[in-house]
Amino acid sequence: MPIRILVTGGTFDKEYDELTGRLYFLETHVPEMLRRGRCRLDVALETVMMIDSLDLNDEGRKTIVRRAAECAERAIVITHGTDTMVQTGRALAEAALDGKTIVLTGAMVPYAFGSSDGLFNLGSALSFVQILPPGVYVAMNGQHFPWDGVRKNTATGVFEAR
Amino acid sequence: MPIRILVTGGTFDKEYDELTGRLYFLETHVPEMLRRGRCRLDVALETVMMIDSLDLNDEGRKTIVRRAAECAERAIVITHGTDTMVQTGRALAEAALDGKTIVLTGAMVPYAFGSSDGLFNLGSALSFVQILPPGVYVAMNGQHFPWDGVRKNTATGVFEAR
Amino acid sequence: MPIRILVTGGTFDKEYDELTGRLYFLETHVPEMLRRGRCRLDVALETVMMIDSLDLNDEGRKTIVRRAAECAERAIVITHGTDTMVQTGRALAEAALDGKTIVLTGAMVPYAFGSSDGLFNLGSALSFVQILPPGVYVAMNGQHFPWDGVRKNTATGVFEAR
Amino acid sequence: MPIRILVTGGTFDKEYDELTGRLYFLETHVPEMLRRGRCRLDVALETVMMIDSLDLNDEGRKTIVRRAAECAERAIVITHGTDTMVQTGRALAEAALDGKTIVLTGAMVPYAFGSSDGLFNLGSALSFVQILPPGVYVAMNGQHFPWDGVRKNTATGVFEAR
Repeated sequence: MPIRILVTGGTFDKEYDELTGRLYFLETHVPEMLRRGRCRLDVALETVMMIDSLDLNDEGRKTIVRRAAECAERAIVITHGTDTMVQTGRALAEAALDGKTIVLTGAMVPYAFGSSDGLFNLGSALSFVQILPPGVYVAMNGQHFPWDGVRKNTATGVFEAR
Repeated sequence: MPIRILVTGGTFDKEYDELTGRLYFLETHVPEMLRRGRCRLDVALETVMMIDSLDLNDEGRKTIVRRAAECAERAIVITHGTDTMVQTGRALAEAALDGKTIVLTGAMVPYAFGSSDGLFNLGSALSFVQILPPGVYVAMNGQHFPWDGVRKNTATGVFEAR
Repeated sequence: MPIRILVTGGTFDKEYDELTGRLYFLETHVPEMLRRGRCRLDVALETVMMIDSLDLNDEGRKTIVRRAAECAERAIVITHGTDTMVQTGRALAEAALDGKTIVLTGAMVPYAFGSSDGLFNLGSALSFVQILPPGVYVAMNGQHFPWDGVRKNTATGVFEAR
Repeated sequence: MPIRILVTGGTFDKEYDELTGRLYFLETHVPEMLRRGRCRLDVALETVMMIDSLDLNDEGRKTIVRRAAECAERAIVITHGTDTMVQTGRALAEAALDGKTIVLTGAMVPYAFGSSDGLFNLGSALSFVQILPPGVYVAMNGQHFPWDGVRKNTATGVFEAR
């Protein structure tokens, strides 16, 4: 089953700038993560943007939705900042992309920092997207939720049913 | 959904003995991996054995099957050496554990070695086990296979359909 | 030879706060680093403060100088933020701590981030402090400099002779 | 001060072969380690051999001694397996390379395995070699010893004075 991964940035892909001490975006780590996971899925990877999801506006969300609509694959994983993952889920659901299974995932710690949950979440999202029925989902913490049945608990950093 | 993880050892959990230069088993890394994945699933963890799967005999397989049969959970992930994962899959299938979804997974590189695929595979196996119908499966390389539809290609280290 | 390590914070010891996405200080990683380096030196470790060296004021520098003056050891390594390492070197030199060899070191990337230079620098500083004559030095990039013969090139992040 | 690094293999540079589960040698990690340490020393790197030091015979030792004698640099770091580091130290000392400071170092855990002491030891050896007087030394565990004043305690893995 062909799978499209749309990269949008988020903590997942942040780097540490050793000159300024700030976090920034360079290139996505997803190809390296797929190699490390010895992934043998039929994956097409596309960097849509590299952005902190707190900086993602309506225009940006439209771009993500358009790429999810236009791509040929019916199984789509979107890497995304955790703070506004649910809003992007809503935008995708409102676009009514019939027949497509879309799974949003992210990370609490950048992959580049060693102690990241990113590899676990990527393995999880790529698995869910292969067998969940069409719809828009969030996969975090080993769990999956429909986009309108989840919220990020900002006090704990955990995604929970609502 | 309550999930049981049965730990049996395998490359997944091997350590480097710095005095002898050999690989050996100490304790399982699965709890640390679940913490790192910020896993919030309802997981019961049980170490059945810590063994290289090339050293696993019929007696050992019976022990694994018995623990899978006896546990209350209907979703079971088994961490296992990759070399004889399929044989254990057969033993589990022959035991006809009706109504249980069992996913075997492992790693090509020990989790303790940094570049391991283990965290990716664990995220994947825990996701598949939640929604695949009852049966016995192997989850490796981001893919899932029924136990009797897969083999490990020993030349490449990749699990492939047969 | 007994060595005193004075911990003052700096990039060396920063952590990533996964709830806010900011860097902060928790506890020093130096004990873990000494274990990882299988260090067998006679080391006494003391956390003087945990601070970004840009936030270090005269009062703070006096505290560091006082601890370096008061401790019994004649070999002292100070972990320190790189931005104002040279200023602290000056304060130590002005205090004229006769007979003491003091080596300031730090890191460009936090130890917790995996790709850090911290372990290399710590091994370097602990080695220099054992054999350099009394004085105040900076050890970075595998090199050592007298405190008044070095500056941090803020464009490259490298310490160079001046 | 120009420094020559002679790479001879050892645990330092071992890799995990994921197809056989055995350790082997590919290419040295020293260049990557120097980059990670942001090393700015004037270093010339040369791979003399890639070998487990238990497999190193007289012929091999002669090759190492010859390269140490022939190179123009007067400061030489040799990465070496820990088991026979002292024997190679003897061979170097017997060659009476007047005016050269030679520091042997190694690791208890391969650099590729994440928890390695290699980066600490490399930082240490490169520092010692810059300021120790001519002679042959072993640098391990943050310490330095003359080649004839040290042995590896095989029960603890620690180098200690004798």
